[in-house]
Amino acid sequence: MSIKVNGIRLGTTQAGIKRPDRDDLLVIEISEGSTCSAVFTQNAFCAAPVVIAREHLNTGHGTRWLLINSGNANAGTGVRGIESARATCHELAMLSGGKKEQVLPFSTGVIGEYLPVEKIALALPHALSCLEEDHWEKAACAIMTTDTRPKIASRSICLHGESIVVTGIAKGAGMIHPNMATMLAFVGTNAKVDRVTLQTLLREAADDSFNSITVDGDTSTNDALVLLASGHTALPELTENHPDFPSFAQAVREVCSELAEAIIRDGEGATKFIRIVVQEAYSREEAQTVGKTIAHSPLVKTAFFASDPNWGRLLAAVGRAGIKALDIHRVSLWLDAVQVVAGGERAADYTEEAGAAVMARPDITVRVTLGRGNSTHTTLTCDFSYDYVRINAEYRT
Amino acid sequence: MSIKVNGIRLGTTQAGIKRPDRDDLLVIEISEGSTCSAVFTQNAFCAAPVVIAREHLNTGHGTRWLLINSGNANAGTGVRGIESARATCHELAMLSGGKKEQVLPFSTGVIGEYLPVEKIALALPHALSCLEEDHWEKAACAIMTTDTRPKIASRSICLHGESIVVTGIAKGAGMIHPNMATMLAFVGTNAKVDRVTLQTLLREAADDSFNSITVDGDTSTNDALVLLASGHTALPELTENHPDFPSFAQAVREVCSELAEAIIRDGEGATKFIRIVVQEAYSREEAQTVGKTIAHSPLVKTAFFASDPNWGRLLAAVGRAGIKALDIHRVSLWLDAVQVVAGGERAADYTEEAGAAVMARPDITVRVTLGRGNSTHTTLTCDFSYDYVRINAEYRT
Repeated sequence: MSIKVNGIRLGTTQAGIKRPDRDDLLVIEISEGSTCSAVFTQNAFCAAPVVIAREHLNTGHGTRWLLINSGNANAGTGVRGIESARATCHELAMLSGGKKEQVLPFSTGVIGEYLPVEKIALALPHALSCLEEDHWEKAACAIMTTDTRPKIASRSICLHGESIVVTGIAKGAGMIHPNMATMLAFVGTNAKVDRVTLQTLLREAADDSFNSITVDGDTSTNDALVLLASGHTALPELTENHPDFPSFAQAVREVCSELAEAIIRDGEGATKFIRIVVQEAYSREEAQTVGKTIAHSPLVKTAFFASDPNWGRLLAAVGRAGIKALDIHRVSLWLDAVQVVAGGERAADYTEEAGAAVMARPDITVRVTLGRGNSTHTTLTCDFSYDYVRINAEYRT
Repeated sequence: MSIKVNGIRLGTTQAGIKRPDRDDLLVIEISEGSTCSAVFTQNAFCAAPVVIAREHLNTGHGTRWLLINSGNANAGTGVRGIESARATCHELAMLSGGKKEQVLPFSTGVIGEYLPVEKIALALPHALSCLEEDHWEKAACAIMTTDTRPKIASRSICLHGESIVVTGIAKGAGMIHPNMATMLAFVGTNAKVDRVTLQTLLREAADDSFNSITVDGDTSTNDALVLLASGHTALPELTENHPDFPSFAQAVREVCSELAEAIIRDGEGATKFIRIVVQEAYSREEAQTVGKTIAHSPLVKTAFFASDPNWGRLLAAVGRAGIKALDIHRVSLWLDAVQVVAGGERAADYTEEAGAAVMARPDITVRVTLGRGNSTHTTLTCDFSYDYVRINAEYRT
């Protein structure tokens, strides 16, 4: 199975932004007539490239290139940062014969240092000269910062004898240096999809994947997720009502979920992968709120690190999630298949041994039922180890 | 200066609830005709004693005794826990000739284990036999769990030749075993104050003290704060419009603030005491939201542990606090007297050396101005160290 996406080419090079010996610049080129959708960080202190990417997307000129650098976030850099981001887009447009508004910039790395525009400008010709459709792996490596491995996912579906491919790459936010480990993800497909449909699909897919993972609750200034559709297929345009749309949407969702899970699993400080499933909530938002409250609790995260079935901490987190009129007598809780809490108190046949056996596993599912409705949400997270403190305390010092 | 409060007596004893060699039971007796106000945890999974204390307060019988045990939280114990809390109140009432509704129970300690009612019943006569007005220090020791030192504060004011005393004790929630380190605080005064006025005053004082401290964002199932007014004074009743009320209210606020600060300073894992002052907010709530977002960020807390002036993390926390239409170009930030950020970016004359010098101090004030209004809020917190992970991971294992 090929992971290549017709109509999308990728080129990487060494710009020497932070380290001299690795690819740190990536250009993704998409053919004319393609569509592009994106979601960005909600952090008010969004980085300069996020400001410019949003601006360029809204001009309606049609995105043709993504320009991504690692090693420098171009965040907290004020007016000069904005000008730097614009300058790199302008440079790429000049070299490629396009408009600067057709370029979207993305940066990840250290906050508060000025972007080395010259280095990027010097390296761009080489990145453009090696654009190829089969450079997804190289691209996944070029956007890494403190990630320990590249993150790549692909799905291929066959519709009426034609192949539709969805391939994506991602980096960050591992537990290592989360401050520079912005979450970036770029997904491409050869399907033909109008921009509005693509944007709706991307928002939904993001909610169930990248927006449902959490390492420490901190949101980066640079987070971005982009979905590109080249339309390089003989198949007709996929609208939401098209009978083939569900299969395509499922492929996009699966790629996003696989990338999101890979990010959590690559937390260097993390020793456990934890899936928090909240069921029987009144609404999806309510389920998500409970899931995130559990996932963000340092007490819960350290208990997982210690393989300690400390269910009091889990219940306390459910209790302080701010759910109105929560009837604690309807709340139950499981660690994998072991029921720990029934009707708000310790399950009659629960034993510490059974709980401890689950907690010793590297992959654990916490399931909470609230007894208030039919909504469900799943949050992915990891534990909180000595290494989390060490890595984040030693960074920069 | 005496810290005794006329009309309030305290008695402690060893009930052997968790350890055999220390006082773990406290009775506070207040004279007839006194008033009592209280605020409790907002956690939906509140412990059995919180349920009963609320219930008894609402009967309007007039609180005469507080019954406090350490070593067992009586939380997550279901119907049996409720019955246990009731039983201990009943026992105390029988021994003292009062009604069980005149007793408020409080517990702190391990979650999920049943309260040893027999042990408490056996120890109660001795606690009652040694009730004295000058046992505040003993009381402060008896309610400790993993605290490293007792927490006590007192203010005395002279009004028209009469002395009004406000004395309080507190325990928890240090960084050690926060799961069992419920925050409990009991404040007494000999002033004469009606219940409604007392309750209003307590809520306000709590907002600026106990509700403005945070170790890790986890709220206990047992948190409670009680203010008792015995009325043992020749002075008239203090209503909110009485000219002497402001001095009295100030004394209560100071006692609460001193106790709250002592709790943060006693975090065993903590190596830094951090005061986060948010100014120029649109509202007090907005200032508080920004302060708590900074205080809860593991990235910020580990940077303080490392004495790293990582202002990108501080700005990122401000940016993700969810403040609507925040103009980042109006945000500035100081570490003690050193301006780090001006108008949303690095201050022109800021140096890493100046920032690092502040970060090396044991007491640090982070001041953020939002440029949106005139409201201010101060949050107290501490850093996040290896010991936090060690202590919370090793607890119970």
